[in-house]
Amino acid sequence: MSSAAGTTPGRRITTRTRATVLRADGTSTIRRETLAGEQPLEIRVNGQQLAVTMRTPGNDFFLVAGNLVAEGFLTRAEQIDSLRYCSNNPGPDGDRSYNVVDATIPSLDSCAVDFRRVITTSACGICGSTSIDQVRKTSEFTIDPTGPVIDRDLLLGLPDSLRRHQRLFDSTGGLHAAGLFDGAGRLLAAHEDVGRHNAVDKVIGEMVLADRLPLAGTIMQVSGRASFELVQKCVLAGIPVMAAVSAPSSLAVQLAADAGLTLVGFSRGDRATVYTHTQKIINLTRGDDCPTTDQERI
Amino acid sequence: MSSAAGTTPGRRITTRTRATVLRADGTSTIRRETLAGEQPLEIRVNGQQLAVTMRTPGNDFFLVAGNLVAEGFLTRAEQIDSLRYCSNNPGPDGDRSYNVVDATIPSLDSCAVDFRRVITTSACGICGSTSIDQVRKTSEFTIDPTGPVIDRDLLLGLPDSLRRHQRLFDSTGGLHAAGLFDGAGRLLAAHEDVGRHNAVDKVIGEMVLADRLPLAGTIMQVSGRASFELVQKCVLAGIPVMAAVSAPSSLAVQLAADAGLTLVGFSRGDRATVYTHTQKIINLTRGDDCPTTDQERI
Repeated sequence: MSSAAGTTPGRRITTRTRATVLRADGTSTIRRETLAGEQPLEIRVNGQQLAVTMRTPGNDFFLVAGNLVAEGFLTRAEQIDSLRYCSNNPGPDGDRSYNVVDATIPSLDSCAVDFRRVITTSACGICGSTSIDQVRKTSEFTIDPTGPVIDRDLLLGLPDSLRRHQRLFDSTGGLHAAGLFDGAGRLLAAHEDVGRHNAVDKVIGEMVLADRLPLAGTIMQVSGRASFELVQKCVLAGIPVMAAVSAPSSLAVQLAADAGLTLVGFSRGDRATVYTHTQKIINLTRGDDCPTTDQERI
Repeated sequence: MSSAAGTTPGRRITTRTRATVLRADGTSTIRRETLAGEQPLEIRVNGQQLAVTMRTPGNDFFLVAGNLVAEGFLTRAEQIDSLRYCSNNPGPDGDRSYNVVDATIPSLDSCAVDFRRVITTSACGICGSTSIDQVRKTSEFTIDPTGPVIDRDLLLGLPDSLRRHQRLFDSTGGLHAAGLFDGAGRLLAAHEDVGRHNAVDKVIGEMVLADRLPLAGTIMQVSGRASFELVQKCVLAGIPVMAAVSAPSSLAVQLAADAGLTLVGFSRGDRATVYTHTQKIINLTRGDDCPTTDQERI
């Protein structure tokens, strides 16, 4: 299975529009602004609808492959027979559709896809309980909870490294980004999208299509918050460290703690907060004058 | 239908955890951090599963009611017979479940809920085209495209007004917020959530349960970006102006333009960018020395 082209045929990653900028001094200016593209993408597996996601067009095959890893359907490229746009039937305007991608995965039966669409089982009859266990997925990979993986100064530098690869952010100001780095800080893959889940899916999708899973020894840096779902995507790909520019949620920390993943929040260049499995960070405290980690407000 | 209690029984809005803060000067400190709560909520309609969303517990009935408005299922409180937690069957640990809410809406048949779960129709057979038309929902309300609704200085002040009502943001640093204001800048409702869609649903849900739809003459201020789905939620509730702290997407601007909604992005206190229907903003340019709006880079 070869990887997909970077841009979606017939779809624009950005568009331009006229807008009025108001300023506090009372002035206003009409000018052209660049907008991040957003279009629906329907993901099908063996012809059966799995999900519809709003995404920035481009690298759609990576997005679909990564989404299938996050569903627990996929860990190796050879499991996919084909990824293709359903563009055989032009719409009423004669335009071909690049908003439906079908993945052929022979090993997957229709029950698995159906089950995913039901999302949860109704364990208690008419009033089942939706619990954390029901939204958690089982990973084929075990993350080694012992360290080390990444140096503390390298970790602090990742937001800047990611920013340098955010091609579209500067023009639109409105795209989330995800970047995967190795333990030496080298970028393995980076993608941008209006949805932060999609950016992570595109990165993991690029890796699974290159048969790089499990992603041992890597760090996922994301631009936004750390939610349960983002941590789960990393766990399913075997990524041992995830860093987010903003705050983690309670459930993100809980899953990271259980799964052996080092979760970092408020990763802002000059500081970072490590919530779980700090043992994977080399030189947690740097310098001879700071031999121990201080404790406050415990 | 009376409105719901503010907190979810048995669920915490925030939790506390121990974390290590790294700083660029090489020091580190262990301290206790507050995390935004995140738990799955299963939404059922007439006993049938509609969706599972990851949300911050609290104001769950508002969240469910707002979600049903966003689905096009609801515009008046009287359409709901009951909203209740499915807490009759304790789980294996004896704990009652507050992660399932069932809404009884007699006017809604099971086909409508089924249709929503299928998300799109397969218009072209095995390879249908998922188009914007298929993710768009029809609103019962028409937004008056003519102005005026809001003064330019009042619009610029809304992010600060919303921030003053963000009770949880300061402690967690990790919650999205949405606030609904009237044309005089008075707050009608404000909610916080790990998901920005949920924050908007909670605001609109509070309003529909108080039978305040359509929300003519109001402004929705949100903390994050302006996506297609957020604009659509406002359109379905009849809200004529939406302002977001960050960037809008291409599809958000397109829907706002078509629906008569004034969409504002980069709403940062000292400036704001108006993308559509600027005629709803009073005093677009303020002061005798600035009689006209400048044009640049067109």
